[in-house]
Amino acid sequence: MTATVLRLAPSDKPTLDPMISLVANDMNLVNSVILDRMQSEIPLIPELAGHLIAGGGKRLRPMLTLASARLLDYSGARHHKLAAAVEFIHTATLLHDDVVDGSDLRRGKRTANLIWGNSASVLVGDFLFSRSFELMVEDGSLKALKILANASAVIAEGEVNQLTAVRRIETSEERYLEIIGAKTAALFAAACRIGAVVAERSEADEAALDAYGRNLGIAFQLVDDAIDYTSDAGTMGKDAGDDFREGKMTLPVILAYARGDDDARKFWKDAVEGRRDTDADLAEAIGRVRDTRAVDDTLARARHYGQRAIDAISGFPSGAARDAMIEAVEFAVARAF
Amino acid sequence: MTATVLRLAPSDKPTLDPMISLVANDMNLVNSVILDRMQSEIPLIPELAGHLIAGGGKRLRPMLTLASARLLDYSGARHHKLAAAVEFIHTATLLHDDVVDGSDLRRGKRTANLIWGNSASVLVGDFLFSRSFELMVEDGSLKALKILANASAVIAEGEVNQLTAVRRIETSEERYLEIIGAKTAALFAAACRIGAVVAERSEADEAALDAYGRNLGIAFQLVDDAIDYTSDAGTMGKDAGDDFREGKMTLPVILAYARGDDDARKFWKDAVEGRRDTDADLAEAIGRVRDTRAVDDTLARARHYGQRAIDAISGFPSGAARDAMIEAVEFAVARAF
Repeated sequence: MTATVLRLAPSDKPTLDPMISLVANDMNLVNSVILDRMQSEIPLIPELAGHLIAGGGKRLRPMLTLASARLLDYSGARHHKLAAAVEFIHTATLLHDDVVDGSDLRRGKRTANLIWGNSASVLVGDFLFSRSFELMVEDGSLKALKILANASAVIAEGEVNQLTAVRRIETSEERYLEIIGAKTAALFAAACRIGAVVAERSEADEAALDAYGRNLGIAFQLVDDAIDYTSDAGTMGKDAGDDFREGKMTLPVILAYARGDDDARKFWKDAVEGRRDTDADLAEAIGRVRDTRAVDDTLARARHYGQRAIDAISGFPSGAARDAMIEAVEFAVARAF
Repeated sequence: MTATVLRLAPSDKPTLDPMISLVANDMNLVNSVILDRMQSEIPLIPELAGHLIAGGGKRLRPMLTLASARLLDYSGARHHKLAAAVEFIHTATLLHDDVVDGSDLRRGKRTANLIWGNSASVLVGDFLFSRSFELMVEDGSLKALKILANASAVIAEGEVNQLTAVRRIETSEERYLEIIGAKTAALFAAACRIGAVVAERSEADEAALDAYGRNLGIAFQLVDDAIDYTSDAGTMGKDAGDDFREGKMTLPVILAYARGDDDARKFWKDAVEGRRDTDADLAEAIGRVRDTRAVDDTLARARHYGQRAIDAISGFPSGAARDAMIEAVEFAVARAF
């Protein structure tokens, strides 16, 4: 017997294209559910929700539900409503996040809170969240409901945890990992696990897909946080330096602070606590992050989790689904290179 | 056969005491669930949630679930988790409402958003909302899940509807009833209906309790909105004149505007659109509302819905449960007299 070792070895330019092709037909049906179920007699609801939902998101999380189900040879239709529910939960958290962060740009567009105000964003988020549970109830699986209700509670806990860590220079890498494990990775994990639930597979298969999603989610967030110290608004579709100006304790800052001398530590403390927020300060921060290899090592951490994601699904049969899921990981970690 | 006609005829001072006594034992168990399930490893969550949950609310909605179940002779324990879920949904909407309204006083205490900020209130609301679904999943009734998921979506729609009606003098009584039917009465209706669901009673019994809760909820909100034009912060536990200053189109304003002459209409348009918001303006508004009998007639409308609530449960056996539910209606409509 020959062991197959799947390595995280980015091809020239890994993309999401194989995954997009893999689930294209299912995704059309999911998109129909999304468009249909964001409707309401109150015109502001589809208007505001549509701004974000039609706004060029990759719909990565529902794609993961579809791809996971495909990996397990599921050929039914139950996962369309559940994948839409996953996307609604994600959209609701984005609407609330933008209020919490006071963001004014997302995916290269003005945020809903900037256009319609914080109140409307909060309430339409609540609506989409409720709708996601209505979709799950229609599906009728208590198991899926439990997984997504739990993920939603964990996401909210992670967001509150992040809120209480903000502007606190003493935040550790461990606490940071706890935060992103909750606020980002929990929904990735749940989205993938749902694929095994609809396919009615074993707990071990559920756990494997959960681990794939969770590790991919952590890698994804690490890269996102690294990009904030390498790039600009044009390539990111969000405001460059947002994390910096909001005093968010992301891994690049945690590493740069830990590795810095007294002068560096004073700079970071001042910055995180809100006393340095000019463009020049941002440029200095980017320089300090680069010089301490804090971005490089944030990306190295991302590759570690990416490799774990790939290993988690190495026991499933090879084929188009597994290949697409592997390339999705490579894409996630390669975005910043 | 003698027909029994139950009349809304307030006793000297109707109270909630009979209902409180009726469900006291069950309510202790519900309170345990509430306290247990608002916990989290993130200290800010129980701290903020506890501020509101321990803050002297009547817990009317979970009481209604318990009383409805009692009316149907249900003697199990399933409704404890569901009643806690109802209260969590209510608490989540209060947290989000106070952010939306920018309120600084609720139940005579400073609001959570004032103490911990809007972001924390939004996120802890999300957490409680997720927890409520976790509790429902533990109960395991898809029917209960469907009722409460639908109520949650309707509440959010009602809140958005109210948001888009704010500062619009042309809002009609019909639209106002639509709004309070969604933002307030839907949860009252669902809370009562859940009582019939756990008791596994017929659809007709479910519908009767739904109608009781819905009409009680409308009466309750009508009286609340009337109180804002009759009372002061001391007796209300909220800021007097909040609705006035926020330009909310409640029935007292709708009636006073409809019945007013040109001078009155100009006053109301200016006030609702935010050009009159001093204490003297509030005093003038209260006078105008009184002179047009707008508060009296708002309360008359409340009695109409109160009578409908009572009639809805007239077919159930007489006894302590039905008596308590009738007196709860009398209490709701008598608060402002």
